[in-house]
Amino acid sequence: MIRRIGKYTIGFEETPSIIGYASVAGKMENEGPLGGSFDKVIYDSYDGLDTYEQAESMLQTEAVSLAISKAGLKADDIDCIFAGDLLNQCTGSSYALLDFNIPYLGQYGACSTMAQGLIMASIFVESGAASIAMCTTSSHFCSAERQYRFPLEYGGVRTPSAQWTVTGSGSCVLKNVKKGPSIARATVGRIVDLGIKDANNMGAAMAPAAAQTLKNYFEDTQTQPSDYDLILTGDLGEVGSKSLYDLLKREGIDISSRHNDCGLIIYDRKKQDVHSGGSGCGCAASVFCSKILSEMCDEKISNILFMATGALMSPTTCGQGAGIPSIAHLINVKNR
Amino acid sequence: MIRRIGKYTIGFEETPSIIGYASVAGKMENEGPLGGSFDKVIYDSYDGLDTYEQAESMLQTEAVSLAISKAGLKADDIDCIFAGDLLNQCTGSSYALLDFNIPYLGQYGACSTMAQGLIMASIFVESGAASIAMCTTSSHFCSAERQYRFPLEYGGVRTPSAQWTVTGSGSCVLKNVKKGPSIARATVGRIVDLGIKDANNMGAAMAPAAAQTLKNYFEDTQTQPSDYDLILTGDLGEVGSKSLYDLLKREGIDISSRHNDCGLIIYDRKKQDVHSGGSGCGCAASVFCSKILSEMCDEKISNILFMATGALMSPTTCGQGAGIPSIAHLINVKNR
Repeated sequence: MIRRIGKYTIGFEETPSIIGYASVAGKMENEGPLGGSFDKVIYDSYDGLDTYEQAESMLQTEAVSLAISKAGLKADDIDCIFAGDLLNQCTGSSYALLDFNIPYLGQYGACSTMAQGLIMASIFVESGAASIAMCTTSSHFCSAERQYRFPLEYGGVRTPSAQWTVTGSGSCVLKNVKKGPSIARATVGRIVDLGIKDANNMGAAMAPAAAQTLKNYFEDTQTQPSDYDLILTGDLGEVGSKSLYDLLKREGIDISSRHNDCGLIIYDRKKQDVHSGGSGCGCAASVFCSKILSEMCDEKISNILFMATGALMSPTTCGQGAGIPSIAHLINVKNR
Repeated sequence: MIRRIGKYTIGFEETPSIIGYASVAGKMENEGPLGGSFDKVIYDSYDGLDTYEQAESMLQTEAVSLAISKAGLKADDIDCIFAGDLLNQCTGSSYALLDFNIPYLGQYGACSTMAQGLIMASIFVESGAASIAMCTTSSHFCSAERQYRFPLEYGGVRTPSAQWTVTGSGSCVLKNVKKGPSIARATVGRIVDLGIKDANNMGAAMAPAAAQTLKNYFEDTQTQPSDYDLILTGDLGEVGSKSLYDLLKREGIDISSRHNDCGLIIYDRKKQDVHSGGSGCGCAASVFCSKILSEMCDEKISNILFMATGALMSPTTCGQGAGIPSIAHLINVKNR
């Protein structure tokens, strides 16, 4: 049974469980604080293939394949998969999933895609539209740089507020089994544009969307930050996380003692030259599907909010001088 | 209640109803056979704005706005909207929906997006995840040409199998009200790639996906083409429709007496120079949300299959020599 809680939040009575998950990451991500916790590491940017785009698809293929086998299933058991990525026309996903032959619904939420996919999969499983559903997403530093910024060979200098696109992927398998990490509630975000136009400061552009979704969730559920073991944002980075604290303080909400950000967790910013932190769909996905779900399975944490944020602009709209519309989708994951 | 029918099909017991719909189209579309049946017509490619991309967003803004008001609602009544388009990073939708302040879940199904959005909205409404949900999509000839092909000023010659991107948008509002055109069943498609690499022959690339989804649906529901008043594909055009007939005949299925295609309906190919027919997300959306839903409301037709098809490649993957993965999502719309 699904019921609506307040104006923006959805509650799941069966609480669809994550029965399998997997993460794949690049060499640099494995050299950071989460080194050793990914299911697979890609040491070559091309992963032995011809293009960065093919390598990105392969990250997703591997993450989906591993998540299915860790759940003790085969591809034919999956009723539906939700996937998306940052590449134009979401081709990272469409080529990645080609050989699985699983009914596919493409999602576009930019870097919020992992949370969006988890919401969709939960609703399908809880409602009976699927017995078993999956979600996945990916990003790749080299394919993102080429598409959004400059050719790598150009060696462009990055601004301090810029973030580093994570090479990685994460994937989850969901089923109603009443055990393990389960999706209890979800808040679908609304698009926000406060007029930030600097494509090298995504954190600041996304923070207002994060603040809005979090505020809506706390109001709808009548809970507060201290009710949760962790409030994990997707990839606000250092600049965006500070903006989020500031915006929420104006609303009388202080998350600083509970908050962490996937973009801050994945790299060691003292040793790794990533400026404001990690970003990309694969950032939230690979952190959530490694460290976070492991800690939930080990019962180190048992009630968390996972909110991935996305910047919904394109290089074309930035070039045309438009603002950066952003969004944040939230899920409450609880151990059963 | 949602129940699964066979391996790939979903059945809706409440059958979420389309309580409001609207279409917006360009000048050329209004000069075709459907002239006069669109809710609004844009006579200037820029729609008085600065860029084709802004004009495309405005098509969607208008279609959503009109559908909401035709349903007798206001934006604040809508719990969730599903939208997507062909522009990189789906910016047609993100900028179009900015001011509505409706919870938003971006979809990417290329030209299959209207059927995908209807499936998502139906599942949200039927399951209680939303009381009222919407979907919309758009395309614009000029923004699509610029992004996928050549600058308009170049005046490139088109091959006979090429299709003409429709300037248009369509939008639907869904709610469980037990009257009018309602979604009874849905089949989510699987990605198919039979190796066609010609980006000027999308119809042929998409036909195998259409054949697969239709075959799955007939098997799951134990129905046949003659059970339906109309089997409407999205935008296979002339070349793709012929391929679909051929592929289905091999499976012993003959849809020719019931089939029509939005890409063939929207233009008069004898008078309008559109080669194989119309295409783009806005093709299926604007035809479905004008002529088709009007005929259902007037009870001229009362039990149809609407299957929009999408080609999931990008200019980058085509340039890299990859095949064109395709997908087709189907809904069964019945009058209650």
